[in-house]
Amino acid sequence: MADALAASLQPRLSQLNADYARAIDDDRLEDWPGYFADPCLYSITSADNHRQGLPAGLMYADSRAMLRDRVAALREANIFERQSYRHLIGLPAVLGETEDGVSAETPFLVVRIMRDGRMDLFATGRYLDAIVTDGDALRFRERVVVCDSGRIDTLLAIPL
Amino acid sequence: MADALAASLQPRLSQLNADYARAIDDDRLEDWPGYFADPCLYSITSADNHRQGLPAGLMYADSRAMLRDRVAALREANIFERQSYRHLIGLPAVLGETEDGVSAETPFLVVRIMRDGRMDLFATGRYLDAIVTDGDALRFRERVVVCDSGRIDTLLAIPL
Amino acid sequence: MADALAASLQPRLSQLNADYARAIDDDRLEDWPGYFADPCLYSITSADNHRQGLPAGLMYADSRAMLRDRVAALREANIFERQSYRHLIGLPAVLGETEDGVSAETPFLVVRIMRDGRMDLFATGRYLDAIVTDGDALRFRERVVVCDSGRIDTLLAIPL
Repeated sequence: MADALAASLQPRLSQLNADYARAIDDDRLEDWPGYFADPCLYSITSADNHRQGLPAGLMYADSRAMLRDRVAALREANIFERQSYRHLIGLPAVLGETEDGVSAETPFLVVRIMRDGRMDLFATGRYLDAIVTDGDALRFRERVVVCDSGRIDTLLAIPL
Repeated sequence: MADALAASLQPRLSQLNADYARAIDDDRLEDWPGYFADPCLYSITSADNHRQGLPAGLMYADSRAMLRDRVAALREANIFERQSYRHLIGLPAVLGETEDGVSAETPFLVVRIMRDGRMDLFATGRYLDAIVTDGDALRFRERVVVCDSGRIDTLLAIPL
Repeated sequence: MADALAASLQPRLSQLNADYARAIDDDRLEDWPGYFADPCLYSITSADNHRQGLPAGLMYADSRAMLRDRVAALREANIFERQSYRHLIGLPAVLGETEDGVSAETPFLVVRIMRDGRMDLFATGRYLDAIVTDGDALRFRERVVVCDSGRIDTLLAIPL
């Protein structure tokens, strides 16, 4: 993709990713499905699984309704009381144009903050995105979350 | 706020934040007050205190003169010899327009590097900013630093 | 440098850095030399060495051919099987115009992911860059990697 065209999309993708991360870290999970198109594809997988073409073991949703169900389940489980998260989303790389939008890849790092103040590296990885325009807004048609580490059992706690 | 307008401000906010972080990490603390309007509001608090509406316990300044005093105190204490810091500032989220500028929220992560080379996660959190234009430049009218962790005693060492 | 001009370059530098990091983290090391002009300067040093004006002890290359040799050596050593890396590149600070491009400084953080899933902070620092245009593309005429920590022996493993 021409560098100039890719660069022209950088600011909008930055804003989209910043808003997305803020919804999760502010614990406004009910806003999170709104960043996706409907239908959509959201999945969380590991780099090893992704490389081998294995299905996403950890989380899969193909509509906003499924994303909302996921949030409802998290609220019921009430896991959030004990810890918080901080997403640091890296610079988006615009990869190319798709039929109705663009594809992009964006690295991320998530820090977990325990209630007693301890912090640890929770997850790193990259988002593989297909992004479409919806009026003035951008939405994720696809967001495949590829975690670098295979230690992903605890990831079930939050959306990434 | 319309996505397109927010996106148009992204590059300028990115540059402002990049310059701000560089002044601190390069130990050019004397340049740091220059990123603020005068008068201003700069404070450091924890997420818990912020959520409960409690006053910022850790640091508070409402003018460039107070920020300069703070830097002078740090220089006198000479704490900087033993360690350095690296700010990784995330993508700014433009939130809306204010009377004389914009409001934004931006996540951050700070790594501390000890003199023997050890590194640790020092702080994560978000900046809640009110930004105004000052001729060609942007300045912080307000920068409220909300640290995710409540373990903030050692944060006294540097501006965040 | 005027803030407005600097801001206009932010999106292109963001895209360049995002592409650069992706080549390394995706283990497409053979693509990595292509982000440099030819001749070029690429070196890795520590903050202490850099401050004292000492030569870069860790890595030095002044042409694409040398960068390619470096990649070939890494492939032969086959170190990559056991771990992967994730670059989080911060917001670029555009510093000024040069004769044929711009100078910029950009912070980075690299996380290492071991094969058993453990993650650790591998390196933090900043890129000191001279960037030139090459047709539609931007390339690094110089990229001096200044690591914050002096513990850099293991850094030999990968390009930063």
